[in-house]
Amino acid sequence: MKRPIGIMDSGVGGLTVAKEVMRQLPNENIVYIGDTARCPYGPRPMEDVKTFTWQMTRYLLKYDMKMLIIACNTATAAALEEISSELPIPVLGVIYPGARAALKVSLNLHIGIIGTNGTVTSKAYDQALAMINNRVKVDSLACPKFVPIVESGAFHGPIVRKVIAETLQPLKKTNIDTLVLGCTHYPLLGPEISRFMGRNIKVISSGEETAREASVILQHDNLLNISKEAPKHQFFVTGSKEIFQSIAYNWIGEKIGTVQTVKID
Amino acid sequence: MKRPIGIMDSGVGGLTVAKEVMRQLPNENIVYIGDTARCPYGPRPMEDVKTFTWQMTRYLLKYDMKMLIIACNTATAAALEEISSELPIPVLGVIYPGARAALKVSLNLHIGIIGTNGTVTSKAYDQALAMINNRVKVDSLACPKFVPIVESGAFHGPIVRKVIAETLQPLKKTNIDTLVLGCTHYPLLGPEISRFMGRNIKVISSGEETAREASVILQHDNLLNISKEAPKHQFFVTGSKEIFQSIAYNWIGEKIGTVQTVKID
Repeated sequence: MKRPIGIMDSGVGGLTVAKEVMRQLPNENIVYIGDTARCPYGPRPMEDVKTFTWQMTRYLLKYDMKMLIIACNTATAAALEEISSELPIPVLGVIYPGARAALKVSLNLHIGIIGTNGTVTSKAYDQALAMINNRVKVDSLACPKFVPIVESGAFHGPIVRKVIAETLQPLKKTNIDTLVLGCTHYPLLGPEISRFMGRNIKVISSGEETAREASVILQHDNLLNISKEAPKHQFFVTGSKEIFQSIAYNWIGEKIGTVQTVKID
Repeated sequence: MKRPIGIMDSGVGGLTVAKEVMRQLPNENIVYIGDTARCPYGPRPMEDVKTFTWQMTRYLLKYDMKMLIIACNTATAAALEEISSELPIPVLGVIYPGARAALKVSLNLHIGIIGTNGTVTSKAYDQALAMINNRVKVDSLACPKFVPIVESGAFHGPIVRKVIAETLQPLKKTNIDTLVLGCTHYPLLGPEISRFMGRNIKVISSGEETAREASVILQHDNLLNISKEAPKHQFFVTGSKEIFQSIAYNWIGEKIGTVQTVKID
């Protein structure tokens, strides 16, 4: 099945999912859209996030995608259920994969979640975790400064470390043994977050986990691409393509093709 | 959806999957059957393995299972495709989950597979890996002595270590960075296998991975058990219930209920 996998995010964060899809499903074609002009989604009313997510969905539907990955936790919390129930293709969010991976590795069932204000307020992770295991204890923390840092292209250095330390301090005092990066932008800060939290805390990247689950569902639904053609990856953004291109190049390397700026509303 | 998950194996190996299902999906009811009277399946003709697997399937169907897990690599290689196409419920094998997990963690895409003669000869792992990533290099090795050791209840000690060292020696000379335990009995020898292979080789247990994928599919198909009742776990074997009970107790702990010996042919 050569039809592409559609991946969407508020900005560059979904690239952490796209990168893993390229690595774990190297035969698959990808169409990506990042709504960089309206990023970050985290502080916006959930109704607006839902509207924007539908706009991205309609844009990707033009490319006849066989699966949609909502590679943004805020958009997943706001719109996954509705979009999933209205589209005839599998629609994956990033929240269940992160929750499931945390339940796989946590030994004390005390799990930390960091995300945007929208994601944390929605309690979507708490619900996903409780749906699978109702004895789990969750500590959530909104980290509103992280997405702007990542979208600016800064992943390392003293300022990044200072923001991370100040933000994550409350989680250090808890007894969590697993921390879910509940925002697809955060894996770009992953090394610094891991360094601050210490080696005893297992850090889960929803990107890796979502790619893994996409592979499970594609095979389950008999949708894997078994064509021998080289895969095609297309990237679209609503804002500056230069900033996106430079972050994508840093994160993914040469594999990224051209990036086009488009209108989606 | 309170209906149980059916899990089957040639013997006690499927307990490595059952244990992980209990841990990762603690709300789910389970019906397990182990064909201990005819174990091991590995050296048998694939047609016989297919017949036995159908017999176990028909036995489990009486319990109105909502999902079937063929927790035996040999049976997966022999019968997954046919059973999956004839049953109206999701049917999972253990080969794709192991393959997918290996592709997620391998950095050099050179993967080792150990399994029974039946599994290795079937080339089912080679096919599963190539289906997802056709640049992967595979070294497979049949380990016919491992299943009898495990079914006898021996997991440690000098004799076990000697058999492991003699058997796995050829793989030490390869460049693999990931080793898939392509038989659900092998995780019981996991610590000794890891010790022999060395810390640079990532060892994948198909049990953990299959439980993870079962969770993905149950949620995708809206089949998770959200009842608050304590889950029920039933175990059936075709051979001695005492040996099974003692291995199960060692491996899973108290959570195992009663075991009954039944006829399935």
